[in-house]
Amino acid sequence: MSIPTAMSLADVACHAGVSLSTASRALNNAYGVSAGTRDRVLESARALDFVVSPDARRLATGTTGRVALVVPHLERWFFGQITAGIERVLSQADLDVLLYQVDDEQHRREFLARLPARRKVDAVVVVAFPLTEEDRTRLEKIGAKIVAAGARSDAYPSVGIDDYAAGRLAMDHLLSLGHTRIAMIALRNPDQPDWSTDRDRAQAYRDALTEHGLPLDPELVREVELVPADAARAIEDILDTAAEPPTAVYTHADELAFGVLRILRNRGHRVPGDISVVGIDDHPMAELLDLTTVGQDARAQGATAGRLVLQELGLEPVDPGLATKAPVRLIRRSSTGRAGTTA
Amino acid sequence: MSIPTAMSLADVACHAGVSLSTASRALNNAYGVSAGTRDRVLESARALDFVVSPDARRLATGTTGRVALVVPHLERWFFGQITAGIERVLSQADLDVLLYQVDDEQHRREFLARLPARRKVDAVVVVAFPLTEEDRTRLEKIGAKIVAAGARSDAYPSVGIDDYAAGRLAMDHLLSLGHTRIAMIALRNPDQPDWSTDRDRAQAYRDALTEHGLPLDPELVREVELVPADAARAIEDILDTAAEPPTAVYTHADELAFGVLRILRNRGHRVPGDISVVGIDDHPMAELLDLTTVGQDARAQGATAGRLVLQELGLEPVDPGLATKAPVRLIRRSSTGRAGTTA
Repeated sequence: MSIPTAMSLADVACHAGVSLSTASRALNNAYGVSAGTRDRVLESARALDFVVSPDARRLATGTTGRVALVVPHLERWFFGQITAGIERVLSQADLDVLLYQVDDEQHRREFLARLPARRKVDAVVVVAFPLTEEDRTRLEKIGAKIVAAGARSDAYPSVGIDDYAAGRLAMDHLLSLGHTRIAMIALRNPDQPDWSTDRDRAQAYRDALTEHGLPLDPELVREVELVPADAARAIEDILDTAAEPPTAVYTHADELAFGVLRILRNRGHRVPGDISVVGIDDHPMAELLDLTTVGQDARAQGATAGRLVLQELGLEPVDPGLATKAPVRLIRRSSTGRAGTTA
Repeated sequence: MSIPTAMSLADVACHAGVSLSTASRALNNAYGVSAGTRDRVLESARALDFVVSPDARRLATGTTGRVALVVPHLERWFFGQITAGIERVLSQADLDVLLYQVDDEQHRREFLARLPARRKVDAVVVVAFPLTEEDRTRLEKIGAKIVAAGARSDAYPSVGIDDYAAGRLAMDHLLSLGHTRIAMIALRNPDQPDWSTDRDRAQAYRDALTEHGLPLDPELVREVELVPADAARAIEDILDTAAEPPTAVYTHADELAFGVLRILRNRGHRVPGDISVVGIDDHPMAELLDLTTVGQDARAQGATAGRLVLQELGLEPVDPGLATKAPVRLIRRSSTGRAGTTA
């Protein structure tokens, strides 16, 4: 028999001599059904071997039990950790995670186009990319709650580090070691040119130099995407062209620092003897490469995002003390040292 | 109004004067409905402003449009790549990916317990972990197709590399360089002690040595989980205890090799002068660390797994030529060299 599950509710209603609506309410324990009617419906359901499927129940209760996780780059450490943290919290609350990968503008548009007219998720978690006003309106129209992870937002509940503070920790560390010629390998994603993470980490560089009375030298700054080889080429370019070469490099992410470390080694520069290198993240490889970095816990941020979802959906009491500004800390390893030790 | 969508199909049927089943078939363009009846039902649907929601349509067609992706460790490179490849193919086919992380035995049991009595997915993709006979029966009972990714299976459609061949490529490379004392840092997951990947990569080591008339020396073999620091401790232990130390190390995965490279550097061993190191995977960091390895394309395997799902669900014609044995190739970098060059 291919008659689908939802149809047999009509059989139950018919058998019990009630309306479809009453049968549905009785089976969902909704209000406004007398005890006698409910018993009669339940008896009919039993007699007809009728089981409410999860999908049918969700149609009836108006929720889906599903949360969409929208992630730009699944294969990167940061996104993998965030996703792992979110999945664990939501699955423990018996919610399902629908995964959408939107690694560029085209896929972001496809994702939004695929959003059905009738909602199929209760909430959307946006991981480290900005929603336009239009995106946001569209999500709100289908009744989906929005939570941002991996970057803080004023527009909806969010969790992330203070990118400016992270950048300052890295820069102040280099300055405290006496460095005055500091290069910056900055992140810039062409798909999100004004992304707050990149902007705040760059602002930290400029402010730290300015506060120390040091000049901003555009010769020492390059913008790249999150590709180690591009960071390697950028630092090579700086070393080959700067009138006075840097003694330290501030990179926006450990993965950029890895590329920098490699090219420095290949070119025979000693780290930190000739040049210090600092990153942000504490990627698992940072320890293996002895990289000084500003650490963040991406998995914990994912878990917090998961709890924000539960609170938005009313599945957990709102906790005003939930730490949505994720902590960062300087992790000193051997890739940074005092300026001029080998001068 | 909280009356759910599925209910109004009864109104449409009533309005058109047909049975619920006929109304459903007409709206789903199923066979066995005359053109006149279909037109009458469609007209009633229009008159009543009735729209089939995706969930309701799926209840009616008996499919969910969803595929479960069951992954042990989202945060690891290999799983992130596989997941990215699968998601891209399935989302292009307008299927949704439900993500389940099952990083140990407990979570695997929880996942299986959460599987509803009535199916909520059309297929399950199992990434690099074994299903028990019981698991398999349970999935088949709910009508879900099974596809395995990241490891080949005789029991259901699967894609993965030939782990034995990969191990042989690595070992034959070391043997061709004249190494005769070769250590093995082998993978072993306590949750899946007889996992084919680990078993086949270890068998390749033993066969390669035996075929070259070399002894199997248990002093040179250690089993670890996929943790770089554990691999580092293992090689340290071998170097500290072996009567005759190895001149080369075969590791089951690049992430193990990274730990080995670090400890060798810290202890002052030259690579490859004193000791050669080879991995398997071609992890993005392998190039940055100049690691010789046996490369595989995890993202392409994910894409192939996605296509296997489409074929299993009848959404794409079965392609007997689809390469389900993913290729591997030796990638020579500077972590391996001739034995005895510095002796």
